Formats: sequence, C-alpha cells, structure tokens
Amino acid sequence: MAKHYDLERLGYQKEDILLMVHADDAGLSCSENAATIEALETGIVNSYSIMVPCPWFWDMAHFAKHHPQYDCGIHLTLTCEWKQYKFGPVLPYSEVPSLVDNQGFFHAKREQVKKLAKPQEVKKELQAQIVRALAAGIKPTHLDSHMYTLGLSNELLAVYRELGREYQLPIFLSDQLLREVDNPDSLQEGDNVVNAVHIGNFKAMESTGLDELYTQQLKNLKAGFNVILIHPAFDNMEMKQVCVDHPNFGSQWRQMDFDFFTDPNTASLLKERNIKPITWREIQKISL
Amino acid sequence: MAKHYDLERLGYQKEDILLMVHADDAGLSCSENAATIEALETGIVNSYSIMVPCPWFWDMAHFAKHHPQYDCGIHLTLTCEWKQYKFGPVLPYSEVPSLVDNQGFFHAKREQVKKLAKPQEVKKELQAQIVRALAAGIKPTHLDSHMYTLGLSNELLAVYRELGREYQLPIFLSDQLLREVDNPDSLQEGDNVVNAVHIGNFKAMESTGLDELYTQQLKNLKAGFNVILIHPAFDNMEMKQVCVDHPNFGSQWRQMDFDFFTDPNTASLLKERNIKPITWREIQKISL
Repeated sequence: MAKHYDLERLGYQKEDILLMVHADDAGLSCSENAATIEALETGIVNSYSIMVPCPWFWDMAHFAKHHPQYDCGIHLTLTCEWKQYKFGPVLPYSEVPSLVDNQGFFHAKREQVKKLAKPQEVKKELQAQIVRALAAGIKPTHLDSHMYTLGLSNELLAVYRELGREYQLPIFLSDQLLREVDNPDSLQEGDNVVNAVHIGNFKAMESTGLDELYTQQLKNLKAGFNVILIHPAFDNMEMKQVCVDHPNFGSQWRQMDFDFFTDPNTASLLKERNIKPITWREIQKISL
Repeated sequence: MAKHYDLERLGYQKEDILLMVHADDAGLSCSENAATIEALETGIVNSYSIMVPCPWFWDMAHFAKHHPQYDCGIHLTLTCEWKQYKFGPVLPYSEVPSLVDNQGFFHAKREQVKKLAKPQEVKKELQAQIVRALAAGIKPTHLDSHMYTLGLSNELLAVYRELGREYQLPIFLSDQLLREVDNPDSLQEGDNVVNAVHIGNFKAMESTGLDELYTQQLKNLKAGFNVILIHPAFDNMEMKQVCVDHPNFGSQWRQMDFDFFTDPNTASLLKERNIKPITWREIQKISL
C-alpha cells in the first residue's frame, strides 16, 4: 500500500542511484552546528534537520535563514538522551506533562515516549516546534523524527502524518526504520517511503571506525532513493561532555561522520558510481 | 545602617586584607564550566556560583555535588543576555509571564526585568532555581544575582533578602554595585555588605587586556572583605558563539580572567601582600 517515491516524475531513470546524505541533530550543540555547516559547505552532505528545543537551535536557525539553498528539515524532538545536557519542550512543560520527566525535560528513552506520551500533547508540542522554526525564518523542506520516535506506534505515526499534511511537508518514512523500532506493518495507503536507509553501527565504530562500513554502503547502493543518516560533530571538549557516558552516537562517532563525508575520496566514490544527489526539496514537488 | 561583616568574629584582624576571587556564570556553557573547574583546582579562584536555568547546569551541578570543598553559590538568574543562545525559567514560562519574552526566554536586559517583572513571579522562579539546585545535590554556600539584577529596585532587593532568610544563606550585597545599578540608598538595617568589589573593565580589556588592571586592583586592595568578580571561560569555538556580537563580558574577556587568576605570578602577588582568602562558608557562620 505504501509506495516508493516516483522519481521518474522528477526526470530520473528507474536505474538511477539517488543519494541523500542527511545530517540529523543540528541545533544540539555548537560543535554539531559547526560541523554540520562545514559538511554542507565542503562535503557531500546535502540535507539536514534542526532540533528546535535544543540550546543551539537559534544559532543554527540563523544559518538556515541565511542559507536557504540547503535542504533543511525540522527534526521533531520528543527525547533528550543525554545524561547531563538537558532540554525540554518548546511549550511550557506543564502543558505537556506526559512528555516530560519530573524536572520538565524530555524523557531520555523513546520507550518512555511510547508508554507515556499522549498523542494530543505530542501533536501540540510538535506544532509548537514547527511554529517556532517558521518564526525564526526557516523554510523547512521536510519533517523527520529524532530517534525515529514518531515511528514507535500507530498513534504517533498518525500525528506525524497529520503534521506533514498540515504544514505541507514531506515526512521521512522508512519501512526499514519502522521494523527497527518494532512497528512493522504500520504503513498505509498514501504513505511514501524511501527505498533504503543506511546508518553507522556502534560495533564497527568501536572496532575499526566507520570508514569501511560507509565505503561498503556506498559501493552497494542500489537504484532508488537512498538516505544515509549521519550526525556530524567535532569530537571536542563540548561534544565529549554532551555525550558523556553515551558512546553510542557519541562524539567519536560524530567526528567520524564529519571526516568521512567531507573527505574528497568519498565524493570521488560517488562520481565513479554515478550516484546522484537528491534532496527533499525535489521530493516535495511530487509528494504534495 | 547596613554594616560590613564583622570579620573579627572569624578570628581575623581589622587590618587583614581578605579576598574572595569569585567565578560567576558556572553552568552557562561547557567552556565556562571547564575553565571554572580548572581555575578552582589550579588557580586562586576560591568561590563560584551556578546558573540553574542554563543548559550546562547539570554538568556543573555534578561537579559541585562531588566537590563540596569549594564554595558554591546559586547565581540567581533573571536575564539571558546572549543573542543566539537562549534560556528561560525553571518554572513553566506560562507561570511567570512577566519574566519572559514572547518565546518564553528570559529578557535580555536587566532594565526589562526592572520594568516588567512582578516580584511574586521573581520570588517563585528563584525559589524554583534554589529547589532544583538542592535537588541536584548542591549544598549552596551563598546566593548572588546574575548581572546584579536583584539590586535594581527595592522590590527586587526585598525578594533577595527573603530568599536569603528562607534558605539560611548569605546574600551578596554591595553598596558599590547598588550605586552602579542606579539604586543607591537602598540598603537597610540588618543588611551586611562586603567592603569592596573589583571587576574587569571593557575599555581596558579591549585596549591592553585585563592583566594590568587586575594587578593594580590586587596591589591596592584595602583591609576588609574584598571580592573580585570574574567569569572564567576558554575563548574557544563554543564560547565565541555564545558571545557572538556581545564583546562586553565576551569570550576574550573570559579567557583573560582564566589566564590571570591561574597564573602562578598572581598567587605570588597575594602572598607578597599577605592577602588572605575568604569564603562564603566562613561568612555563613557569622551572618546567620
């Protein structure tokens, strides 16, 4: 019932290998912002999304407003997974009690969101995040979901779809990610999904680093709309402290993401295989 | 009517030159935390205070909890002076509307607080800041006021005094700072004030740096309870971005503070003049 995007309507061929290298988590920290901007400007990252509730949102929003040439989505946020670096809703937390811990910050784990969050509070908060992004001068190209939390249940997916319709923005859906968050068979008529999603891996990161994994992913990309999800940041003092006791998607991983996707050899690899960049701005034309 | 602290009750002599080197703004950023910690551990900084509403509060609170040997106050916060780095109340902002801008963040200027803030909302919010600090395991030694905002009016001063009484903590009062915020003659019976406050200066900072100014301050310290207020931070990527378009008390200034007060020559200067360190923990014994 769910369909892949019809990329022929954009002028692509069925056999074309299309790739979006998407930077999640812009706005999280100064390090994340700086690395994301450099990866957009000098690397092959061609899309990113911003976390509105984070301390560094305004810094990234300033960039987004003045650089509308880059695909920029809203990374709808319902979790704060860091131990000593906390953020909470855009709305007063007393208005969305099911979304927060006893200090008014987002729950750390997406399972808590699945268990506790009331869909109407989720919707209200995510509308507020979008409204704040719009007010900051961002012209969003898409919506996606931090830690894929909106894929966790059919109720959350329903909110996700409603927000897409309401703000006329494509939402990032992937059957593969839905399986990974234990919510398979939840797609429905009218959903558009990307063909494949690629992402780093903690074991590989710890043992050999991510270069080999990403190289293999690029060498094996198949025809269709591929997305590589990365989280570029510099492994500096700030980012190490944000990620303290949280090596999964931690600052080392993020530095590897930055390094690999700004390496000229990576760009060459894309050229060799005639991999074409694709953006949400293009997708917007055929999905709405 | 207001009195200087009676330091003879602590065993000091009338002619003793007592000095507290106090680091404000801990919790503001990762850079501020790291520099404050290093300045406490290796420099002559002997007291600091934490901004509870800031993104890096939890990181600093973790340090404070595990290092109770250092004087640690609560830097009561009602303003957010930074352009693209925003924070707001600990309470849901809808409960303290007079304290926030239209996005729910603190006003940027203390004059806005003076004009708009309702004393009962100020009190409620500052109680929440103290309660959060206590819950985080901090054992505060004193209260002080970010940008000396609580000195702006008699109503705000009344809240400040009430909080001190309520939580049995000395509050940092200075007739000199009250004059600087255009609220002279506002002290009253029962107030205890420090003898002198020393602070950097933007013009000096821009032209020759702060070393000479601080050196002169130390050479001219008089007998009594002296406080030098500093804001140590590293002038790194994060701090430059926090302070963007705000060179006054900006990242350069903060690096100079760190450098001077961790320089062994500064410690030698104190020794030469027999300047003795004093802390709020001591003051607590005679003020409550």
